Amino acid sequence: MTDLSQQLAFVLEIDKLKAVYRQTTVKEDKDRHENSAEHSWHIALTAQILKDYAEYPIDIERVVQMLLIHDIIEIDAGDLFAFAEQQDHAQQALKEAQAAERLFGLLPPQQHEQYKALWFEFEAAESNDARFAKAMDRILPLVQNMNNNGGSWAKHKISQPQVLARNKHLEYIAPKLWQYVVQQTDLAVSNGWLKKD
Amino acid sequence: MTDLSQQLAFVLEIDKLKAVYRQTTVKEDKDRHENSAEHSWHIALTAQILKDYAEYPIDIERVVQMLLIHDIIEIDAGDLFAFAEQQDHAQQALKEAQAAERLFGLLPPQQHEQYKALWFEFEAAESNDARFAKAMDRILPLVQNMNNNGGSWAKHKISQPQVLARNKHLEYIAPKLWQYVVQQTDLAVSNGWLKKD
Ligand SMILES: [Ca+2]
Repeated sequence: MTDLSQQLAFVLEIDKLKAVYRQTTVKEDKDRHENSAEHSWHIALTAQILKDYAEYPIDIERVVQMLLIHDIIEIDAGDLFAFAEQQDHAQQALKEAQAAERLFGLLPPQQHEQYKALWFEFEAAESNDARFAKAMDRILPLVQNMNNNGGSWAKHKISQPQVLARNKHLEYIAPKLWQYVVQQTDLAVSNGWLKKD
Repeated sequence: MTDLSQQLAFVLEIDKLKAVYRQTTVKEDKDRHENSAEHSWHIALTAQILKDYAEYPIDIERVVQMLLIHDIIEIDAGDLFAFAEQQDHAQQALKEAQAAERLFGLLPPQQHEQYKALWFEFEAAESNDARFAKAMDRILPLVQNMNNNGGSWAKHKISQPQVLARNKHLEYIAPKLWQYVVQQTDLAVSNGWLKKD
């Protein structure tokens, strides 16, 4: 296979991400479930809009690239609800690593290695770029839920400490956004959308 | 309003792009119509994968940014089928310019100007970045239709010269991809998916 045919095989394969549905819903489209492809678009653009809140240097091009690929592994591994049990998260991590190998493996060798490394960097959430990307992936569902009467939180009886724990990357990398998240979850508790603890 | 509340108002408003449907369908999801949000994700990532085919220098960060925002105007203006009549295209251009003003106008002034300028640059298709972005926006439906028995071409009785005219940006900016497009449309004609002329 030529590089181009490998690249186009990858481009076609990832079409499947449009059939992976998440817990969040699209208020503007009859509250249907959101899929991971349109979610990836939404946070990649959100990261660009909010990039100046990063307190440490980030490379926004890499952040966007991470966000565009971060969910591709769900084509094989499925989407696990953010607030699932810990043991389910461990099993999921294994399935996702195998998925990364197969899916990025469709690309020519150099791109295979590059994208796989980028995905592992995102998952590890240790570099500033990965922390900021992760933080975007977590703040957006909060903004969506706050705009949708609590959305998936209310339905699954989620608590404020759970949401704050998921958004903890913000405290370091974007403290102004962290402050906003704390205020919003306070509001969500008083609206009855989040349990107090 | 603070910058953050303006930025989040924009982030929430663009959720509506997930409810704008296109002619192309998602084979992997029961052939439902594709929406413009997931399409934007798909071409932004495709541009990154294919960036080395650009024959002239491009700034891939700007290309990706263009592709992430290029369809947002459809929230107000709707999606016009690529092969609609010329007079419909002229009317559409007016509606889209008004939409760009309203939608990017939700952002703080500096980002408003920046994103609006980027969108106009994309539309004008004169810079290398815009040409490459446009070319990606046009080659992807071809790849999708070729993988889906002619997809929206067959349904709307489209001809090979029409598809080649839409992909003409490739000839200058990415000749190897242009060659591929010509071959694929020949194949589509022999499969009966495109009319010869
Ligand atoms: Ca995600």
